[in-house]
Amino acid sequence: MGKVLVVGAGGVSSVAVHKMAMNPEIFSEIHLASRTKSKCDDIAAEVKKRTGVAIATYGLDAMDVAATAALIRETGVSLVVNLALPYQDLALMDACLEAGVNYLDTANYEPEDEAKFEYSWQWAYQDKFKAAGLTAILGSGFDPGVTSVFATWLKKHKLDGIRQLDILDCNGGDNGLPFATNFNPEINIREVTAPARHWENGQWVESPAMSTKVPFDFPGVGEKNMYLMYHEELESLSTHNPEIERARFWMTFGDAYINHVTVLENVGMTSIQPVMHNGVEIIPLQFLKTVLPNPGDLGAKTVGKTCIGDIATGPAKDGSGEKTFYIYNICDHEECYAEVGSQAVAYTTGVPAMIGAAQVLLGNWTAPGVWNMEQLDPDHYMEMLNRHGLPWQVVELDAPAAF
Amino acid sequence: MGKVLVVGAGGVSSVAVHKMAMNPEIFSEIHLASRTKSKCDDIAAEVKKRTGVAIATYGLDAMDVAATAALIRETGVSLVVNLALPYQDLALMDACLEAGVNYLDTANYEPEDEAKFEYSWQWAYQDKFKAAGLTAILGSGFDPGVTSVFATWLKKHKLDGIRQLDILDCNGGDNGLPFATNFNPEINIREVTAPARHWENGQWVESPAMSTKVPFDFPGVGEKNMYLMYHEELESLSTHNPEIERARFWMTFGDAYINHVTVLENVGMTSIQPVMHNGVEIIPLQFLKTVLPNPGDLGAKTVGKTCIGDIATGPAKDGSGEKTFYIYNICDHEECYAEVGSQAVAYTTGVPAMIGAAQVLLGNWTAPGVWNMEQLDPDHYMEMLNRHGLPWQVVELDAPAAF
Repeated sequence: MGKVLVVGAGGVSSVAVHKMAMNPEIFSEIHLASRTKSKCDDIAAEVKKRTGVAIATYGLDAMDVAATAALIRETGVSLVVNLALPYQDLALMDACLEAGVNYLDTANYEPEDEAKFEYSWQWAYQDKFKAAGLTAILGSGFDPGVTSVFATWLKKHKLDGIRQLDILDCNGGDNGLPFATNFNPEINIREVTAPARHWENGQWVESPAMSTKVPFDFPGVGEKNMYLMYHEELESLSTHNPEIERARFWMTFGDAYINHVTVLENVGMTSIQPVMHNGVEIIPLQFLKTVLPNPGDLGAKTVGKTCIGDIATGPAKDGSGEKTFYIYNICDHEECYAEVGSQAVAYTTGVPAMIGAAQVLLGNWTAPGVWNMEQLDPDHYMEMLNRHGLPWQVVELDAPAAF
Repeated sequence: MGKVLVVGAGGVSSVAVHKMAMNPEIFSEIHLASRTKSKCDDIAAEVKKRTGVAIATYGLDAMDVAATAALIRETGVSLVVNLALPYQDLALMDACLEAGVNYLDTANYEPEDEAKFEYSWQWAYQDKFKAAGLTAILGSGFDPGVTSVFATWLKKHKLDGIRQLDILDCNGGDNGLPFATNFNPEINIREVTAPARHWENGQWVESPAMSTKVPFDFPGVGEKNMYLMYHEELESLSTHNPEIERARFWMTFGDAYINHVTVLENVGMTSIQPVMHNGVEIIPLQFLKTVLPNPGDLGAKTVGKTCIGDIATGPAKDGSGEKTFYIYNICDHEECYAEVGSQAVAYTTGVPAMIGAAQVLLGNWTAPGVWNMEQLDPDHYMEMLNRHGLPWQVVELDAPAAF
């Protein structure tokens, strides 16, 4: 067990902190910091009400390495859980190195002025963390995160390597609004307007954003259209599983969602290039975020389920030839809201953040260095998913993915 | 002939000033003022190049009544032609009264913080202009403007009163962009997102914005969908023609235009309520204007034609029973651009502004007071339309409008 500092106070943070508070045998003290202290206080009040656990809160500029290091020392934590914006990953890694503690996040670093998703910046910290004897865990959300653990679990228990991997992310929820993103609109729209990219025969294959659409019948949800996209775990999964011939990422979007994003892109509202407006520099996408509904406010209105998982094909461990497994979790928006006051998209990211943090605090994941999720032993993590709200199922399919 | 001060330096102003310069026997001196003097200088350079006429330019805040009155006195003009934003109408009328000169505009006053289109504010100046012996002409664009003159011409020459009036505004042009408004996006979107309203049997009938769609085969353009909308001339036409049983305004929009406006409205980008963004108050619709293409830049890319006119039904003057006439102008985007460097939407507003100003300077429209276009003698105005780029045709239809 140990003390943890959570940075960031959005929907994912609220879920993770609730779940930490529900496991005091692992998380003996929880500290919560964000630029806006009042958002931390709001989460702390909710957690106190639901669990009786008190959480200490702080105002903190996560880009200020010295201030973060000072707070780490002051609180005496051994792990920083970064649930802030991906722009802040490197500053928080620097602060962990400076203060000599472990690090965990749920999304890879992105420069704020460029929609560029790659691990290079964070992998460059490998030697520093090794030399310091510290552990940095990258991407312990659902995707990336659980989807990589799923793949590693299949390789440990079912398949002698993975030949084809498809990650399928379906949100079958309905919030009743004409348009709202499931999580931070700025990050969401940067992702969906970027070109699609998948790994095939040792190289990246790029296609225009939202140009490949496939209908798929999701367990617990039904048929939805899913779109080929780039997602950051494709880079680490293909790097750490060199046997993979093809790795793809798919996400479902309704026609109305696609139409809204297309129009907003047409008129320039998704741009991250600043424009001058009445003498002030404004980034259109950030202003769009300001006018769009706050995803954190949608929990009470959202009904339906999410279904996220992997379809993996490879040679069976038992020598019975090529096999295909589909491993997934189904999560219900209303049940999540009833439990922790957040809908399933925040829940499916926040719970794995807690479980990843637990692996570090419990001493299961302690090798010095910078690690992606597929590099770590999956068994205790998988067992915790079942116990802490994200139960998974694995089924054998008759054939590899036909799409 | 006389001296004129034009206020405003957008697309309509550029057309009006070009056309004034082409008629030096009416416009002996042209002065041009706008908040941004460089925009006036750009227009002056274009006019000089095309016509050889020199125009004096000034930087002016049109909301500053004293500054405007001083400029009027300094230039010695007898008429102010207001082609600025409709928010500035009252300030410019005040300046004309203070300096003792006549006034003409193309769009009724709107308060900036409310999408409210009515003449009450400007009609309240009636006594002041009468007492000062000055003339104020309201709405001398195409619609409002020519469409009211068309109605009055029909009443003078063809019909003993109008029973039913439909104003049909079709822009069959294509600028090749996914979305761009034909004129100031802020004013355009305020108009199209407002509820539809028409005059019927002595009262206003309101319906949701864009909810009544009718296909119509426009002369010179072909079939387009037109939508019932409110437009300001309905108020003055029904007031000054009490015999009108029904008056409606229709405008064409393509499906893509409707979709873009709907999405932008859904996400809150058409709102005129300020929101706080990074500590600055921003009006979403004004920021949208900043990111959208400047309509003035579309001239070179726009092809196709506009067709704007009136369908009017009433008892024939010759006693032959009820008759229906369709009177309209067809205008070609590329021809307008070749002549004055602007597309047809600016052209069809700027030319009538010049012709209305000519009526004042030539002494045809000089009665003291505040006048809407349908109250004034149409004949010389109609004759000038034919000679100055907006030739019109009148055809008798077999029956009243069937839509």
